[in-house]
Amino acid sequence: MPNERVLPPSGLALIAFLALPAAADDPGARIATQGTPGGTVACATCHGQNGGGDEGAAFPRLAGLNEGYLARQLRAFRDGGRDHPIMSPMAKPLTDAEVTAVSAYYAALPAVSNAKPPQELSTVVGGVLATEGDWANRALPACAQCHARDGLGAGEAFPALAGQVYSYILAQLEAWVQGKRNADPHGLMSPIAPRLSLDEARSVAAYYAGMEVEPRPASGVKQSAGVPAGFAHPGQPGIGPAQTQAAAPLPASPPIDHGPVDPGRSQGAEELFQPPARGTAPNDPMGDAIRLGEAIFVGTYSHPESARYVGNTQTCEGCHLDAGRLAGAAPMWAAWVAYPAFRTKDHRINSIVERIQGCFTYSMNAPASAVGHAPEADSATLVALQSYIYWLATGAPTGDTRMPGRGYPALDPTPQGFDPDRGARVYRAVCAVCHGSGGQGTWARGELLFPPLWGPQSYNWGAGMHRIDTAAAYIRHNMPLGPAQRLSDQDAWDVAAFINAQERPQDPRFKGNLAETARLYHAGHYDYYGKRLGPDGKTLGDEPAGR
Amino acid sequence: MPNERVLPPSGLALIAFLALPAAADDPGARIATQGTPGGTVACATCHGQNGGGDEGAAFPRLAGLNEGYLARQLRAFRDGGRDHPIMSPMAKPLTDAEVTAVSAYYAALPAVSNAKPPQELSTVVGGVLATEGDWANRALPACAQCHARDGLGAGEAFPALAGQVYSYILAQLEAWVQGKRNADPHGLMSPIAPRLSLDEARSVAAYYAGMEVEPRPASGVKQSAGVPAGFAHPGQPGIGPAQTQAAAPLPASPPIDHGPVDPGRSQGAEELFQPPARGTAPNDPMGDAIRLGEAIFVGTYSHPESARYVGNTQTCEGCHLDAGRLAGAAPMWAAWVAYPAFRTKDHRINSIVERIQGCFTYSMNAPASAVGHAPEADSATLVALQSYIYWLATGAPTGDTRMPGRGYPALDPTPQGFDPDRGARVYRAVCAVCHGSGGQGTWARGELLFPPLWGPQSYNWGAGMHRIDTAAAYIRHNMPLGPAQRLSDQDAWDVAAFINAQERPQDPRFKGNLAETARLYHAGHYDYYGKRLGPDGKTLGDEPAGR
Repeated sequence: MPNERVLPPSGLALIAFLALPAAADDPGARIATQGTPGGTVACATCHGQNGGGDEGAAFPRLAGLNEGYLARQLRAFRDGGRDHPIMSPMAKPLTDAEVTAVSAYYAALPAVSNAKPPQELSTVVGGVLATEGDWANRALPACAQCHARDGLGAGEAFPALAGQVYSYILAQLEAWVQGKRNADPHGLMSPIAPRLSLDEARSVAAYYAGMEVEPRPASGVKQSAGVPAGFAHPGQPGIGPAQTQAAAPLPASPPIDHGPVDPGRSQGAEELFQPPARGTAPNDPMGDAIRLGEAIFVGTYSHPESARYVGNTQTCEGCHLDAGRLAGAAPMWAAWVAYPAFRTKDHRINSIVERIQGCFTYSMNAPASAVGHAPEADSATLVALQSYIYWLATGAPTGDTRMPGRGYPALDPTPQGFDPDRGARVYRAVCAVCHGSGGQGTWARGELLFPPLWGPQSYNWGAGMHRIDTAAAYIRHNMPLGPAQRLSDQDAWDVAAFINAQERPQDPRFKGNLAETARLYHAGHYDYYGKRLGPDGKTLGDEPAGR
Repeated sequence: MPNERVLPPSGLALIAFLALPAAADDPGARIATQGTPGGTVACATCHGQNGGGDEGAAFPRLAGLNEGYLARQLRAFRDGGRDHPIMSPMAKPLTDAEVTAVSAYYAALPAVSNAKPPQELSTVVGGVLATEGDWANRALPACAQCHARDGLGAGEAFPALAGQVYSYILAQLEAWVQGKRNADPHGLMSPIAPRLSLDEARSVAAYYAGMEVEPRPASGVKQSAGVPAGFAHPGQPGIGPAQTQAAAPLPASPPIDHGPVDPGRSQGAEELFQPPARGTAPNDPMGDAIRLGEAIFVGTYSHPESARYVGNTQTCEGCHLDAGRLAGAAPMWAAWVAYPAFRTKDHRINSIVERIQGCFTYSMNAPASAVGHAPEADSATLVALQSYIYWLATGAPTGDTRMPGRGYPALDPTPQGFDPDRGARVYRAVCAVCHGSGGQGTWARGELLFPPLWGPQSYNWGAGMHRIDTAAAYIRHNMPLGPAQRLSDQDAWDVAAFINAQERPQDPRFKGNLAETARLYHAGHYDYYGKRLGPDGKTLGDEPAGR
């Protein structure tokens, strides 16, 4: 089998494999190899004896895929959410128990792939789209944003693409373009597929079909030195960077308004600044500093250079999307030319260095980090971050504090105001898929896909994002990720209120008195600190997580 | 005498005044009040009994002026260097002894002024030209650059203008325009006067005529906290910031090539960047920071905020003329957009903060300062300097490392190379007038007019200016101050070599071994450190000044 890549199974998959030679007493194995009494044909007939799929017929690999994802697809075929001339009739007779059994069976199989992407096809463009996307021009997040950098997916919402059959991936992209497939969470894929040219789709499909189907140590993503052992919030699952979290169950019917895309970003009302293209930093020491800065920017909590200054599991990119490039998501090129500046937060002039240090102190909760404070002005971390941000701003006019796309475009108040209880419903329906039902974020084999939103690994009570208006503006213009869907203004306000009605690490400016800290730093209307009871019945900010 | 301003005499002048009621046994007083046997009429006839001048007849105030300046003018009238229908015949019969005596007499008189500038004349424009000049458009240094901020002049080269008779000042400016007066040092005034419109000349004259004729504590110029007591170099006069240094005697015939003005600056070969106009920073906290930064920039060693980081008596403006605005003199607007950058000096990326810290460490010899090091990144000094420099760069494109006018335009080597001995002659003839025969700089009542060029109060062996090529480029394009005169390339090379063949404070990177320090940091062709014998017969860098 020269084209079948079988990799050594590991962990649970190995045990399952060794325990199933007979398969006679495993109902899942029976369905897969013999079919069902109701008339479903043996899955292996089309998907291969090893479950690795069939390139010639565009039948997908199933072996080693997420159990919940497989079950959801089977139910969708059976119940009509997903339509296919072969699979719909095959799924029709399946009972819920059979769906569960056969999904578990394939999930436990060793990850193998029968994919045979065309050898002559270049994967360069596909690799760029997969790992970087094209946010600026098409509001297109990288595939890896949800499917993980190793392409192995996350939870039941985001299937593995690595080693998936090339012709199957391509056929699915086409199905999304034609509207034949639309049961994905929040319809996330529906607007993405049409934005790819056929050549791009081919290249993306080939890129993923050719990837390894087993996890490898991800380059550039390492254990965070900044997360103290046992740093967990009561009532929340422990979150370790190397631990894969199952994403929350998908909601039946997400209440997303399909409003217009943020006009400032892709409708071209104003000419947007264009930072230098990725990968074009010079091949010299300055270019090295720029690349180091970019790596720190996207992997702050885990990068060996910056991890010691980070007291949670956040990155700069969490608030500044597309590696700090994206208009409407506080792009770094607009920030660079606007500092030094007076800030009402501390009533003094902040240089860009002090501004970045503020991000570490608050958004990355530096007081809980290994060194206990933000990086020093002359640290390699801050020099590299400055180099990267400076480079992103190449050509931007110094002192221009009104560059289109800067910051988060402010969100007008709504007549209904904001309400955490309404927001809880929005959160469960929309946000939990990615950020987890407990706000704990989503991880895949050590890689953070979606940052924690509350609890000990989130931003602390001094971060700008704890303000409801700031969070609402960010959410409204940027969430959920994807090109065409946005929450309504009202939903953005409500869910921002919900998120910021949860506990999080203490404000570093706290000096032992909640009321005094609230009076000094949290007087605003958009701030629950010291004012509202949290989920544990205590006032928010009182004995908060990770203090 | 309602229009005669008589201010309380002080110090020596008071003693002289009280001691001279009879005046009979003072030959100077006799000449002034009775004339000479040779036929010179009593000076007081025209210049007033108090020596305060005569506004109606455009006769200048003499009382309290510098003795050497007065003597030089009398000799010029007598010998033909300066021509005037009344004064030339009056001076003709004077002996050298009489010149000396009458000059000493008037210099010792209490400073009084009979100036009556037209009351309706606005001094606003004149004040700006006097204190700021118009470097960018006319290569015009401020009058105060040589005549001091208080207008009271410096040494015999730069007479007091404060309280000078309005009509006399105006007549002199006109005389320079018409070429009738041209005996000033290096012809400095000849190209300046024609660049003023008549209205400007009137306003300048009125501005100075109305100024106080006695020193007052200069605002913003204070004793430097950064200069240790007794910090003096053997063989050099002790230099205190509050001490007025007599400028060196004027050379008979300065060998200045009247070459073209630096083309990059005023001939408009390339469009030069224009920083915001002076005084236009906003009236808000950011504007306050900008103004603080500007004050620190021009008064670094003496400003209360920055003095403690300065180990000599230098300012940022010493190397970055016109408060950091001047093209060809390493303007700050070009520097701001070019950092962070890799520097071969320390083989790492320098942020703008680190770059400025380098200026303190080397050019301002911070190791000898009160705190012993450059200002911290978050110090008020560095935040203010950044704010000011950032503001100067308003509109400049981030990352543009080729802005016309940036740095010092490099100077091509000459066939003759450079020679400190040739340079010594250039220095004595041209530079010593302002920088002093011992390189000690020129001070006026606590105000630094021209910075020390070697010795303990100068830049140290680690500063960029100690490189002969850097100094030559700076000198060629900027020295001596003034719109139309430059040294030849050869003279610039030679005098740069001479200046940098003198001793100065130790390189802060020195670790106890001269040869090793020279090998590590001073290997270049343009560097005498550790290679050449200094004036004291020791190798330069060996037991240098102020270590």
